[in-house]
Formats: sequence, structure tokens, C-alpha cells
Amino acid sequence: MPEHPDDTAIRLVGFDADDTLWRSQDYYDEAQRAFERILGAYVDLHDAHVLERLYTVEKRNIALFGYGVKGMVLSMIEAAVEITGERIKASDLHRIVGLGKTLLTHPVELLPGIVEAVEAVASRFDVVLITKGDLFHQEAKVRESGLARHFRRIEIVSEKDPQTYARLFDEFGVAPGGFAMVGNSLRSDIVPVLALGGWGVYMPYHSTWAYETEAELPADAHARMRRVDAPSGLAAAVQELAAVSGRCGLA
Amino acid sequence: MPEHPDDTAIRLVGFDADDTLWRSQDYYDEAQRAFERILGAYVDLHDAHVLERLYTVEKRNIALFGYGVKGMVLSMIEAAVEITGERIKASDLHRIVGLGKTLLTHPVELLPGIVEAVEAVASRFDVVLITKGDLFHQEAKVRESGLARHFRRIEIVSEKDPQTYARLFDEFGVAPGGFAMVGNSLRSDIVPVLALGGWGVYMPYHSTWAYETEAELPADAHARMRRVDAPSGLAAAVQELAAVSGRCGLA
Repeated sequence: MPEHPDDTAIRLVGFDADDTLWRSQDYYDEAQRAFERILGAYVDLHDAHVLERLYTVEKRNIALFGYGVKGMVLSMIEAAVEITGERIKASDLHRIVGLGKTLLTHPVELLPGIVEAVEAVASRFDVVLITKGDLFHQEAKVRESGLARHFRRIEIVSEKDPQTYARLFDEFGVAPGGFAMVGNSLRSDIVPVLALGGWGVYMPYHSTWAYETEAELPADAHARMRRVDAPSGLAAAVQELAAVSGRCGLA
Repeated sequence: MPEHPDDTAIRLVGFDADDTLWRSQDYYDEAQRAFERILGAYVDLHDAHVLERLYTVEKRNIALFGYGVKGMVLSMIEAAVEITGERIKASDLHRIVGLGKTLLTHPVELLPGIVEAVEAVASRFDVVLITKGDLFHQEAKVRESGLARHFRRIEIVSEKDPQTYARLFDEFGVAPGGFAMVGNSLRSDIVPVLALGGWGVYMPYHSTWAYETEAELPADAHARMRRVDAPSGLAAAVQELAAVSGRCGLA
């Protein structure tokens, strides 16, 4: 029996994009603060729970709008109308559209050390990029990042759930046990991959959308995942999981 | 020399989705008429050129928003604010968001005869679906259509230009001369494929977004494309092009 049978040893590594390769949530947070300031002209921000109410609207609309900036802006408009009891002025709603345009045009800012980390992992494994969100915006960011050439495939998906990962494993021709995912979202990057029998490297970002933290790790997660605090730890963590995964294949 | 060498005879057929497999533009047209009615409370519709001004805003925003319902709604909001000189009420802007929600939830209505046409083509060729627009919305429509099982691949792309088709041919492992595209948009389905050396079956829909008609056919287009008026003519048109393409391979 080979030491690293193809079906259990890690040979393909997936990277998430937003807040794993480049900054993203910071810009959303900034847009939300600007949203709150706009509504401050209509309601008392101490009582109105503006961001909680926005989040409620966003969750309600996800099944319809999906992820990404455009859906967020539409939810902001809806929330603003509700929260102000239809008193908000057209010019302020127009400013909210402008918040979205700012988000869609900010330059891509790579996380410190991520280029080296992707190169180090790519020198030992095949790597793919798997991100959800708006096709148009994510493609633009991938292009601008300069990282595209490292990835064998770039997959922009509408949802990161077990079904999606299972479909991708099939397309990639890899068994779940041969795949490790690197990302900052327990809900989207780690939990569904572990559930299928894959591996995960969790690299939390200092700010995460509430939605992405709504996830429960399985009890045995520690055996199949590693947590790192910065890109400089990524390659070693993947290597460590690969060594463990190799031993799994032994009889 | 074989009669149908792999690199010139058609062996893969791509189908567009909106207004080729199912109704789409009709719903957009309806939303635009509703938009016009909403603005009718603020401006004289005879002078205001509401839909021309909306189209100007949409074209200006395409590089930022891409295609699809959410971008259209954001452009509608922007246009409404501009056209009314910021006089439009929050409740009316909220109604515009509602137009988008209606568009995102209407049931998929297949064009008469399209199921039989796809089946007939799929019985002789590999078929793929190639559509642009919003990932989330297009996936939902593909799922609901019941047609997904006929297609070897389903590609939702951000733009249908020669670069995109060239990348897809590469992924599909097909030469341009071995590919025919079926669709209702000269700009997105026919012109770029012919430009690369492929083949096209143009099936116009009774209503087409102005943007999709901005296209110029090459002078020799008649040799590499067919025009049909309804799905019942599709299989024969593809077959005819396939016969021509087979002869092209002869020395």
C-alpha cells in the first residue's frame, strides 16, 4: 500500500478570497458606519438599532439577492425606508447607492504575506480559488489581485455549502479526503468541507460579517483542522494536515 | 482524411438561456413600464424620455454592476432620483426595489417547443448552456427549468465576448470550428462566436434589450449562421450547419 494513497492524502488546496487573500469586510464595515450616519438624521441612533435591523433585512433577502455588494445596497435601501418610516429623502437613498459604488471600485489590497503563502502552498499542491458573491465583482478583484496565475481553477459560486463543495470535488476529480480549504469563515470555508470528510485551515480575520460566524464545528474538528493567525502560518499548517492525511491512508 | 475531422465539424452546441430557453425580456419590459408609471407622478412622461434616460444610466453602470436584475434596480433608483430632481418619495423608491423582487421571483416559463428542440440537438451533439447575468438568479432559473440534465456543462459568465468564448472553448477542449452557439442576441451569442471561427443559430425574440442589438455581423456571416423563427426550427438549422462544417474539413 502506498504511503500517500491518492484518495486520502491532501493533494488539492482551496483558498477563499475575501478576507483570506485580500481585505473585504473592512470596506463593508465602513459602508455600514456611513449608512448609520445617514440614518442619524432621521432617527435617534441610540434607540433605533439601525445595524441590527439592517442585518435582519439582509438575512431575509439572502435567498433572493444572494451575496455581494448589490444585494447589500438593495437591503440597505429597504431597511432605510423601513427604519425612517418612509421619511428618508431621495438624495439620501442616492447616497446609499453611492456607498455601493465605492465598495465596487475600491482597489484590491492583498493581506500582508499572502502572496508568499500562496506561492509556498502552490509549490507543493495544486491550488484552486473558491469564492462566493457577485460574479462580476469577484472576477474584477481576481484580475486586479495578480494572483490568478497561481490557481488551477477559479470558482465563483453562489453558495458555499456541502452540495457546492461536493460538486466541485467531482469537477476537480478529487476525493474529499484529498482536499483542504483555507479561509476565514467557519460557516462557508471550514464546516461544510469538514462535514464532507475534507480538511480545513481556519484563518480568522479581525472583522467578520455576523452571518459567517453562525456555524458549529463538529466535535472532532480539531483532528482535521488547524487555526492560524496570519498568512505566514498557512503553508506549515497545510503541510501538517497533509502529513496527518497521509498517515490516514495507512492500513 | 476523415469526412468530419474533429477540429472543424461541429460537435458541441451552446445554448443561451434568457429568451432562448425561457421568457425573460418580457418581464424586464413590464418592470420598465411600471417604472415609467411610478415616475409619471413627478414628470410629464411625454417630455421626460424616462426610458431613454434609464438606458443611459444602465449603460454607464454596466462596467460596475454587470448584467442582471439587481444592477437594473440600482440603475433605476439612480435614474429616478436624477429624473425627478431628487423629488421622488422613499415609498416610490421602495416600490422600485419591489419591481426587482418581482423579477427575481417570477416562475420560469419555457418557450413553446424548446424542450423538444434541446432534446433533439442533445441527441446528436454534446450541448452546454452559456448564459450571462447574475450567478444567483441564473442558477435558480436553471434549477427550476428542469433542463439542467441535458447540458454537459452550465456556464454562467460575466460577459459574452470573444475572450470569454475562447476561454470556454479551451475548457471544453473544442476548436472554434467545432462549436455552434444558439441564441437570441446578435451581440452576445452570434457575433463573438463567428469572430472566433465558430457557427451560430440566431433565434430572435420578439423583444430584445437595446443593448443586445448593438452589434454588427461580419460580411460573410450568412455562410456560418442560420436564422430561425422558433424552437421548432433549431435542430434542423444546427444539422445544416454541421453538414456544412463537415465539408469544410475536406481538403
